[in-house]
Amino acid sequence: MSAASPLFPKIALIGFGLIGGSIARAARAQGLAGEIVTTARSARTRARVEELGIVDRVVETNAEAVEDADLVILCIPVGACGPVAQEIAATLKPGAIISDVGSVKGAVVRDMAPYLPDGVHFVPAHPVAGTEHSGPDSGFAELFINRWCILTPPDGVDPEAIERLRAFWAALGARVEIMTPDHHDLVLAITSHLPHLIAYTIVGTADELAQVTSSEVIKFSAGGFRDFTRIAASDPTMWRDVFLANKEAVLEMLGTFNEDLSKLTRAIRRNDGEALFEHFSRTRAIRRGIVEIGQDSAAPDFGRPHAQLGKKAE
Amino acid sequence: MSAASPLFPKIALIGFGLIGGSIARAARAQGLAGEIVTTARSARTRARVEELGIVDRVVETNAEAVEDADLVILCIPVGACGPVAQEIAATLKPGAIISDVGSVKGAVVRDMAPYLPDGVHFVPAHPVAGTEHSGPDSGFAELFINRWCILTPPDGVDPEAIERLRAFWAALGARVEIMTPDHHDLVLAITSHLPHLIAYTIVGTADELAQVTSSEVIKFSAGGFRDFTRIAASDPTMWRDVFLANKEAVLEMLGTFNEDLSKLTRAIRRNDGEALFEHFSRTRAIRRGIVEIGQDSAAPDFGRPHAQLGKKAE
Repeated sequence: MSAASPLFPKIALIGFGLIGGSIARAARAQGLAGEIVTTARSARTRARVEELGIVDRVVETNAEAVEDADLVILCIPVGACGPVAQEIAATLKPGAIISDVGSVKGAVVRDMAPYLPDGVHFVPAHPVAGTEHSGPDSGFAELFINRWCILTPPDGVDPEAIERLRAFWAALGARVEIMTPDHHDLVLAITSHLPHLIAYTIVGTADELAQVTSSEVIKFSAGGFRDFTRIAASDPTMWRDVFLANKEAVLEMLGTFNEDLSKLTRAIRRNDGEALFEHFSRTRAIRRGIVEIGQDSAAPDFGRPHAQLGKKAE
Repeated sequence: MSAASPLFPKIALIGFGLIGGSIARAARAQGLAGEIVTTARSARTRARVEELGIVDRVVETNAEAVEDADLVILCIPVGACGPVAQEIAATLKPGAIISDVGSVKGAVVRDMAPYLPDGVHFVPAHPVAGTEHSGPDSGFAELFINRWCILTPPDGVDPEAIERLRAFWAALGARVEIMTPDHHDLVLAITSHLPHLIAYTIVGTADELAQVTSSEVIKFSAGGFRDFTRIAASDPTMWRDVFLANKEAVLEMLGTFNEDLSKLTRAIRRNDGEALFEHFSRTRAIRRGIVEIGQDSAAPDFGRPHAQLGKKAE
């Protein structure tokens, strides 16, 4: 235990996948909790979390997990947040902060808020971080460092509760920003949801072609395709829920994307090299911006490792 | 110099960008050439290549570069291959192997073949490797290791010439495969050209939105978008030429992609979670295949570096 007093005497994590597992590892590493209690839906995951020995206690039910907890974080697919809010409502400690990590915020607020009792502080959150892996073994303490965590507190939430949750995420290494749920959902539709939808689409397309075999797709994937397969390997349940929960914003972004794709398609069809060159030149700047503020590696190829040449005998 | 006799007494590289520069570095490291002569279109690039000191000689014209060369490789955008073939035709050495590195093969064969004299061996090639960087400083000797290089020799080419070029690419670390130009162009349309077109499109879309600022797109790009920006930072001239030269295959793949995107869009609109889940589950397998044959890193997030947490004082 840390000598300084922890931010929260007891933290309850509902769900122990990539995000829940990373929060547990980082919170423990930073001494942010007196006690961390976890639960997960499947007995297999709960057994694995016990084995990992990262948290203080693993319990069987959501209602039991949140008892006496000062901070409760739902680390589950967004579609499950409403039902779980209903399950835990009766055992929540007065004064507790209730949060989540969902990639959609409007739907989560609509689904959870009706069940939460007066006297608890509801501060929805979304750490914009992740990898293509999932499950209890996939988390790591460094996942949130230099990534943004967006808080979308409803009107009237106690500013002190917001500040405590901000301090928690800052201690995990994240930068914290506050916005409305609707604006969050629009921003994420373009920076995360649409990219995933497109990646899932093209990987599916490649998999079903008659003229090119899957084995050829795999072998020659270093031409660009392989970058899309990482995203398209993300957790299917999580992403099903994201698209259903953020339907309107995703469909809106998709409409704009389709218009832009039609424009480039027309330029190809008409042999309009100038239009293509102009478009391809503009898109370099945004990459530079991302690298400059440390949101991606400046190393070529994301810093992928390259093998060494075995030198020819001299 | 290597003690063993080099594969080619003299190699001429026309163009010194990412690919030409990587070939020069790797060929030198492996002792594959008695002499490497290079030229580039701009005086600035030629001066930089002189400074780098990787090649034996830098000359001003393409015609001069290929004199006495046993292997000539055009490392330039595919749209420039026809005109350059015309320029070098008169000074090519009888018996020389003429090759290229273009991402489209049908158009390159059509553009170059008419100019090449009898008595030289035309063996078009495409190393499926690259990064988002370009220019004389961007190359490195390890670029081709474990990547495929596809040869598309026209009917009737001397098998010995094909074998010598195969041995050259194998010595650079590549695995070599032979196929027809048309099949190559179909395979690359899905594994490389369509992914680039889509990445260029979505990055352009994000850049022009009214509701979400560019600064927000950049900050929250770790949700998936940043992966697309790497590809969309690729060389605009090279990619303009690719789409113009491989128009038919790209439009065909685009048609299939659009059908598949419509299907997923309809599933979102109709709240068909089952269809989404089913699609998202299928696409994981292809990623596994790519990682298994060493075409991508198994590390989460392409192995991107993660900063360490500064431990709280104990």
